[in-house]
Amino acid sequence: MFTLIKKEGNARRGRLETPHGVIETPVFMNVATCGAIKGGLSSRDLEEVGCQVMLSNTYHLHIRPGDALIHELGGLHKFTDWHRPILTDSGGFQVFSLAQLRRIKEEGVYFSSHVDGRHIFMGPEESMRIQSHLGSTIAMAFDECVENPAEYKYAKESCKRTARWLERCKTELARLNALPDTVNPGQMLFGINQGSTYEDLRIENMKEIAELDLDGYAIGGLAVGESAEEMYRIIEAVEPYMPTEKPRYLMGVGTPQNIIEAVHRGVDFFDCVMPSRNARHGNVFTWHGKMNIMNEKYAKDMRPLDEGCGCPACRHYSRAYIRHLIKAKEALGMRLAVLHNLWFYNELMQKIRDALDGGYFESFYNKYHDFLAERSTD
Amino acid sequence: MFTLIKKEGNARRGRLETPHGVIETPVFMNVATCGAIKGGLSSRDLEEVGCQVMLSNTYHLHIRPGDALIHELGGLHKFTDWHRPILTDSGGFQVFSLAQLRRIKEEGVYFSSHVDGRHIFMGPEESMRIQSHLGSTIAMAFDECVENPAEYKYAKESCKRTARWLERCKTELARLNALPDTVNPGQMLFGINQGSTYEDLRIENMKEIAELDLDGYAIGGLAVGESAEEMYRIIEAVEPYMPTEKPRYLMGVGTPQNIIEAVHRGVDFFDCVMPSRNARHGNVFTWHGKMNIMNEKYAKDMRPLDEGCGCPACRHYSRAYIRHLIKAKEALGMRLAVLHNLWFYNELMQKIRDALDGGYFESFYNKYHDFLAERSTD
Repeated sequence: MFTLIKKEGNARRGRLETPHGVIETPVFMNVATCGAIKGGLSSRDLEEVGCQVMLSNTYHLHIRPGDALIHELGGLHKFTDWHRPILTDSGGFQVFSLAQLRRIKEEGVYFSSHVDGRHIFMGPEESMRIQSHLGSTIAMAFDECVENPAEYKYAKESCKRTARWLERCKTELARLNALPDTVNPGQMLFGINQGSTYEDLRIENMKEIAELDLDGYAIGGLAVGESAEEMYRIIEAVEPYMPTEKPRYLMGVGTPQNIIEAVHRGVDFFDCVMPSRNARHGNVFTWHGKMNIMNEKYAKDMRPLDEGCGCPACRHYSRAYIRHLIKAKEALGMRLAVLHNLWFYNELMQKIRDALDGGYFESFYNKYHDFLAERSTD
Repeated sequence: MFTLIKKEGNARRGRLETPHGVIETPVFMNVATCGAIKGGLSSRDLEEVGCQVMLSNTYHLHIRPGDALIHELGGLHKFTDWHRPILTDSGGFQVFSLAQLRRIKEEGVYFSSHVDGRHIFMGPEESMRIQSHLGSTIAMAFDECVENPAEYKYAKESCKRTARWLERCKTELARLNALPDTVNPGQMLFGINQGSTYEDLRIENMKEIAELDLDGYAIGGLAVGESAEEMYRIIEAVEPYMPTEKPRYLMGVGTPQNIIEAVHRGVDFFDCVMPSRNARHGNVFTWHGKMNIMNEKYAKDMRPLDEGCGCPACRHYSRAYIRHLIKAKEALGMRLAVLHNLWFYNELMQKIRDALDGGYFESFYNKYHDFLAERSTD
């Protein structure tokens, strides 16, 4: 049940009630691909960095340890000891980006596992069954994510097929939710808008899937090769056709700047591997700009990454120490940088929600939307 | 200042007062090679797993980030934000095991860095200067650690040279501790007994170095190729010649069984990379025996690693989850296993101290000394 609490321009302050508790939006979901955040973070750490929603990957968990095993053990919440909301992607993105020997048919996709090469078939029903096994709070529809730039003809055919798959997802999940041994009988389903960078395809597709009255709608197939400006253009084109009373999720996005720009255009949910992936290379986000901690000038810098920050890394450890650890390939270096970056992302969303609550989002946006992309001079 | 509180047979319950607080013995030191425990543990984590003493490596920190930098930043305690005792090894062991193109002379050792191949010279004075820069609580004397089996003639020459080096260490550290900008003016020095597996060499060397009236004495050059029985034989031979009013440290040892056997023979201090190195491969220590969590039979086991254990891993996570994480090469898997193993080692030492305090060490030893080496059937 989604409640739109407040609007400022197109930006929205909302609240999604779920079987695993309330999600305050706009929200950034923290990516735990295989059931754990890269860098050695546990569900206790996620609580500490202010995470509201953990996102896990259907494809990875299907391959290893297997969704049947997780189902048998009581679902992903119990397996990871994370009891707040979990969103699972559909596996589609990984099937199209990671898997080998891929053949797309009306019924679904035939491919080989990237781990051991074994043949796998995944279609809408299979994706729903896996996600039902995992028992996530929100399941994502099985879609084809077309890389940009894409040919108009292919993009059109693909998004028509994805729309047909969506109806099958809805039917199958309703059936699964009614089974006596289902992990989460209240599992929600978000549909995914596709259509590459073609506004007419996007709008036509959005109108079509809006009629299915799903629990939420995602914009997929962005941040896959096109420029940020094209991405913003597509969001602006499709947004008027997204149901206002349903949450909107921009998949796989993005930088802090991308996020504030998309909130400004009416998006509620985000996810991205950037905070953990960047941390691995010493790239950290701060309220004085982006920093690469591997820079020689931080070698003797005993200040925390961000002096005002309350994260577990900044409360105790210095730039000099974290830099040393990453250089020495000590796991603690990446762990501290990831803790910091996720804290930063979650705090950014909190500040955005505060600004919307306080009615000053426009001035917050004006102050930060360019600044968030700048390098720190500190 | 070491106080021998109690004895039961040869086993000793003691207390070492240091500038960074009291160390209750017998104690296991937790190895943070480059200033962090492998597996992504921070100084906060070390507090949580009940660590009393952190052990860091002089050689590694000299190479990277450099001891001069750590000195400039206020010493290793400040750098790592660990404010309890730290012991630094002398660098000798790494020079003899890791470094390339090694030439041993009376003045010290010429070698190439294992990181970038640059030429380095390290002798007793250099080792003391580096450790003084780090400002550890306890510095170890610079020694040659001879691999077993060793030829009698070489072992004899080497341990005579190491004894000469020890005198130079003592003189140099006294000079460094008196400098106005020294990090820890109360830095202690432990000497190291050598002599390979030859009892006469060990005893002669021990008698000689005992006269230097150092803050503690280590038995070095064991657990480097010889059998456990040979190790116990050497401890038994040399122990009567170790000053009773000084702490005794068995370097680089060992398994839980090795530790309880050595406590039984009068040793107070231990260190080993085993709890973290084993964790990486899923080998964990429990009070129902050793387990390899990668075993198929744990794939669906939702129990904690050890049901009675209060460690951060066992409080929240299952065998099935930790096994999955290690298989999926997720850093969290190793982190949880290391947290558990260090907790186990620190708890083992606590139980040994409790047994000595309560006057029932002999029955504790009889109950556990063989059991600790067994595999779990759980």
